[in-house]
Amino acid sequence: MSSLASTTGPVLVVGSGLLGASIGLALSTQDVQVYLQDASPTAVALARDVGAGQILGPQAPDPHLVVIAAPPDVAADLIADALGTYPDAVVTDVASVKGVILRELEQMGGVDLSRYVGSHPMAGREKSGAAAASAELFAGRPWVITEHPDAEPGAVRTVRHLATDLDATPVHLEPDQHDQAVAVVSHLPQLMASVVAARLIDAPEEVLALAGQGLRDVTRIAASDPRLWSAIITGNAGAVLATVQQVRSDLDRLIEALQPVDADGPLALGATAGVAALVSAGNDGAGRVPGKHGGVRRRYAEVTVLVPDEPGELGRLFSEIGEIGVNIEDFQMEHSYRQKVGMAIVSVMPGAATTLEESLTARDWRVVAR
Amino acid sequence: MSSLASTTGPVLVVGSGLLGASIGLALSTQDVQVYLQDASPTAVALARDVGAGQILGPQAPDPHLVVIAAPPDVAADLIADALGTYPDAVVTDVASVKGVILRELEQMGGVDLSRYVGSHPMAGREKSGAAAASAELFAGRPWVITEHPDAEPGAVRTVRHLATDLDATPVHLEPDQHDQAVAVVSHLPQLMASVVAARLIDAPEEVLALAGQGLRDVTRIAASDPRLWSAIITGNAGAVLATVQQVRSDLDRLIEALQPVDADGPLALGATAGVAALVSAGNDGAGRVPGKHGGVRRRYAEVTVLVPDEPGELGRLFSEIGEIGVNIEDFQMEHSYRQKVGMAIVSVMPGAATTLEESLTARDWRVVAR
Repeated sequence: MSSLASTTGPVLVVGSGLLGASIGLALSTQDVQVYLQDASPTAVALARDVGAGQILGPQAPDPHLVVIAAPPDVAADLIADALGTYPDAVVTDVASVKGVILRELEQMGGVDLSRYVGSHPMAGREKSGAAAASAELFAGRPWVITEHPDAEPGAVRTVRHLATDLDATPVHLEPDQHDQAVAVVSHLPQLMASVVAARLIDAPEEVLALAGQGLRDVTRIAASDPRLWSAIITGNAGAVLATVQQVRSDLDRLIEALQPVDADGPLALGATAGVAALVSAGNDGAGRVPGKHGGVRRRYAEVTVLVPDEPGELGRLFSEIGEIGVNIEDFQMEHSYRQKVGMAIVSVMPGAATTLEESLTARDWRVVAR
Repeated sequence: MSSLASTTGPVLVVGSGLLGASIGLALSTQDVQVYLQDASPTAVALARDVGAGQILGPQAPDPHLVVIAAPPDVAADLIADALGTYPDAVVTDVASVKGVILRELEQMGGVDLSRYVGSHPMAGREKSGAAAASAELFAGRPWVITEHPDAEPGAVRTVRHLATDLDATPVHLEPDQHDQAVAVVSHLPQLMASVVAARLIDAPEEVLALAGQGLRDVTRIAASDPRLWSAIITGNAGAVLATVQQVRSDLDRLIEALQPVDADGPLALGATAGVAALVSAGNDGAGRVPGKHGGVRRRYAEVTVLVPDEPGELGRLFSEIGEIGVNIEDFQMEHSYRQKVGMAIVSVMPGAATTLEESLTARDWRVVAR
């Protein structure tokens, strides 16, 4: 059986959840031999049934690569076990914290860390378990590889091949750098979405009726799984704590600015400047969020079109934009309050916006804004 | 000149910014006679040029309705002036705070408030000024009407007609109820988006490279105008302060949960439960955000498709979904990290997801996830 992949099998995947099963599935479709292991016989059988690989048995050959796809709090023990059991294998894990796990391994003593390289594919979905596995889960996603001074270059290369075989983009960071990075770009947004959403629990219906797209955007990820996220956040407690404390300092300054001088009196001098400084800092930060393809954020022109909420209308809009000959760079849908109409926000290159607006208007679309 | 609208002209619009000019434009297109007034001759001339109405002159007939479309900090004075100058007119304003303005008017004394009814159309855009005006700006948006005990029913009706003539949906709230509502659904999300984005200012490029859709969603509105937002936030300081203080209490609890018992020691018992409780509260709140058309949030099935970033590909996807005969309920575009490919997340009714997935796969689309 000749493989299409750079990864040399057999690969042993320990843990048959969403990530483990998706890795097994993606490698299997490229004819890499995959064995599966999990403390739960049901979970491993399900992973086998979706095509992630064979269940590990006593006859299986020793793996070239072991992938530990288990929760952060058990990862270090499983990594150490694998390094001991398979003295020729490279071992990686895909847990969402990296510095903590490396320190646990170092503190064990006597573990050969030259063959261990941690990693973290930035992929996931709302659903969990092997039933939700997909060979395409990692396509186009960053896959962080956290090498450490004791890691052999060959081991790093093996993990890099795993990432590229799964169509992910390797990103090299030090373990603690990784943990600080995800605290800022992933864990903090999750927590802030949760605190904003938590304010809505007791809000009357007529208050919720005023919700706009801004609130929907900010609170979308607040729907995430509490069990998974409490494990992620407490696993990265140090870096998250530092970031949350900086946010609290910002809020302290804001609260001070909004405090009246006397009860019911006017705001202090500088209140407006204080709020403006915060919003302005937000402008600067938001401008650094990568846009399409992780590159520099391009400025597109937005053309907003009213679309009746009827079968085929959105499709008709797209077909007609195709006929007009304008390329859609980005697209967003916004829904109206209690009306059977949606707003399609079509991003195009600035030079094409006037053509698009005029052509759509000529075709009887209601262009709401530009 | 017979009008299509329920609003009886002439209408005087005071203030020729985005909102004032859009109101004038929308009424003018329905043959309501509109006069424009602004302290800036340039601004009022621009509003006239975009078709928002005629510039107010000495020969103009007295208005039936005056709309004050000026910043919150000057609104009360302009409302009182209008009530005095036009003793038969109904007067409304469209400022984003309502309780503060009503109290200012009451404290002036001698103002006939029976003809005043405040309002707040929940519409806006990134651009400002009459040049960005649109007759469709209010279409499908909530328009809050804040009646008070002294307001005549006829005055309330007049403002209601203004809202419905502009295709907005009237929502009745008391002035202080309105201010508390926008603090929670609009001002708090804005501030939290800003504090999260502010953490990115000093982040290295390789950290930003890990940004996913969650960060993009949470920080999108952080790009808003600091001058406008500092006026909005300080104008509603009381209600915003109360909400931000509740958020700070949540953060205090979170910080306590993430604090190690000793330096470098383990987390306190209950840390995981504390974080889970916060994320869980966020689940409950996020579940209350209205979805399409302000109704109950429907559960759609999501089918995620890889779309090459080439002209016409997104249009082709939509055409083919139309041919397959499945109605698109919602749509979102997500972009991959440094790859020339996007992910189209197509929401459909749960019963249609399997058909869509199978039909798209048969047409050689890469369905990434379901």
